[in-house]
Amino acid sequence: MSLLAVGSVAFDDLKTPGGSRDNLMGGSATYFTLSASHFVPTQLVAVVGLDFKPEHRAVFEGRPIDLEGLEQKPGRSFRWKGSYGDELNEAITLDTQLNVFADFHPHLPETFRQSRYLFLGNIEPSLQLDVVHQMARRPRWVALDTMNYWIRGSRQELASTLKEVDILLVNEMEVRELTSEHNLLKAYRQVLNLGPKVLVIKRGEYGSVLMTEDCVFSAPAYPLEDIVDPTGAGDTFAGGFLGKLAQLGRMDLPALKNAVITGTVMASFTVEQFGIGRLETVQKKDLDDRSKAFSDMIRLDDL
Amino acid sequence: MSLLAVGSVAFDDLKTPGGSRDNLMGGSATYFTLSASHFVPTQLVAVVGLDFKPEHRAVFEGRPIDLEGLEQKPGRSFRWKGSYGDELNEAITLDTQLNVFADFHPHLPETFRQSRYLFLGNIEPSLQLDVVHQMARRPRWVALDTMNYWIRGSRQELASTLKEVDILLVNEMEVRELTSEHNLLKAYRQVLNLGPKVLVIKRGEYGSVLMTEDCVFSAPAYPLEDIVDPTGAGDTFAGGFLGKLAQLGRMDLPALKNAVITGTVMASFTVEQFGIGRLETVQKKDLDDRSKAFSDMIRLDDL
Repeated sequence: MSLLAVGSVAFDDLKTPGGSRDNLMGGSATYFTLSASHFVPTQLVAVVGLDFKPEHRAVFEGRPIDLEGLEQKPGRSFRWKGSYGDELNEAITLDTQLNVFADFHPHLPETFRQSRYLFLGNIEPSLQLDVVHQMARRPRWVALDTMNYWIRGSRQELASTLKEVDILLVNEMEVRELTSEHNLLKAYRQVLNLGPKVLVIKRGEYGSVLMTEDCVFSAPAYPLEDIVDPTGAGDTFAGGFLGKLAQLGRMDLPALKNAVITGTVMASFTVEQFGIGRLETVQKKDLDDRSKAFSDMIRLDDL
Repeated sequence: MSLLAVGSVAFDDLKTPGGSRDNLMGGSATYFTLSASHFVPTQLVAVVGLDFKPEHRAVFEGRPIDLEGLEQKPGRSFRWKGSYGDELNEAITLDTQLNVFADFHPHLPETFRQSRYLFLGNIEPSLQLDVVHQMARRPRWVALDTMNYWIRGSRQELASTLKEVDILLVNEMEVRELTSEHNLLKAYRQVLNLGPKVLVIKRGEYGSVLMTEDCVFSAPAYPLEDIVDPTGAGDTFAGGFLGKLAQLGRMDLPALKNAVITGTVMASFTVEQFGIGRLETVQKKDLDDRSKAFSDMIRLDDL
């Protein structure tokens, strides 16, 4: 009953109002699998360069993360350099070096093709579709993340891929760009026409919105006094959300809402330290305590 | 057990992507009392000019809104002209004519001085403080709204007034300006030092956040496909929130959360038509139906 995740493993140089850190392990699939693997066995498909050392691999080891799909190639790993202003709500990209990621062509190991759940991280839409086609059978659900770069530049390919997708996870700007609708209810109806039945909109400091044919559910971000580095929060959210959903093995409304809470709580750990610093050390008790606190916070009490 | 509200009764010229309307009855106290009077008898203190005709007065009549404090003076009423862009999230002020409102000096009728609940709408802080001093006894709670203009220009007077305030209702930009803190948890601790124990932050399309010493509670905006005119949404929210709180006669967490739901639902009616068009026609059944739908939406179900 595992969750297969395709995406990037990268190294980041980050600058925030609180300081700078270089050469931090990052990438969407790193945050995603570290988060999802708390809930379900996870299979990682990504590519790294020769700068990916045993100490980096060790981050995944000792967790239910299958690394058979983690290719290592000559050259350097994907590298991203970003900076955040005082409000920490938007990263400014200072430099992107795709390196080995430029020629990434995901190839699923035989054992991965049986996965029941599939997360297509933010890569070229035609590659995402190719991953779907490599599966031995249709997963119980397919989830997809994308970005404005593909929405603008590969609209046709993205449309073909979205036909295979059950759950779309994007941020607010992205869903507006994809659908040309500012109103999120109208945007959701467009998304339905494109394929996905479930839309999860990530809103940064405003939390997230889950939309299904029956319901709209919003959850705020977990309130924190000190946010150090928002890098990876959205991918951590996706990992918690989809990991929990795969663990539950259900897609009904209580399961979806519960998964939103889980994603929110996981993301709240990520932002507390640079990179994966805090996410790496999260224990079950931390997760349980914060999930309980968050549920109490948003719960409506009887009068 | 009535709620006394001081604020503006005005006429608005509004331009939205959906059209234009001139000479609409508006003003913070209009939206506030139309909303609050669904829950509790309300007393209105405001000033209007000779352009305020019997048909305008009729809007308040037939509701538990006491108009003894509505002064009429020679001259024209406060007039505001505003316009909204496609995203409807921020009004651009095209023209403001204070008219009789420029010399507004609230004078409470004798019967109003006994009110148990007091809402100080967005007027000059020293006038707000003077209203507090006119009360025969300290109300069970005092709530206050203000704006950046006073936060910047009358900081000392506002600080003196806030010492008398239990509940501060402002928008996100205002609380950040007031406290010089971007982080809302830190901002709340500054607010506590200023006087108010309860902070309600209005966030427009992102809903609202309630902060107390024990809890942070966020509620999204009620999702609507067609938003016609956001004017007055924040004042309608304040009226629903404080009206419900006065009706309940309690300030515990279940009561506060319930009041947030009520404020949110009332505001969702206001934005459906220009001005007070929809708010005027809200019936108890509309309110009950939407409150139930909204509570179901944000409720966490057991797995």
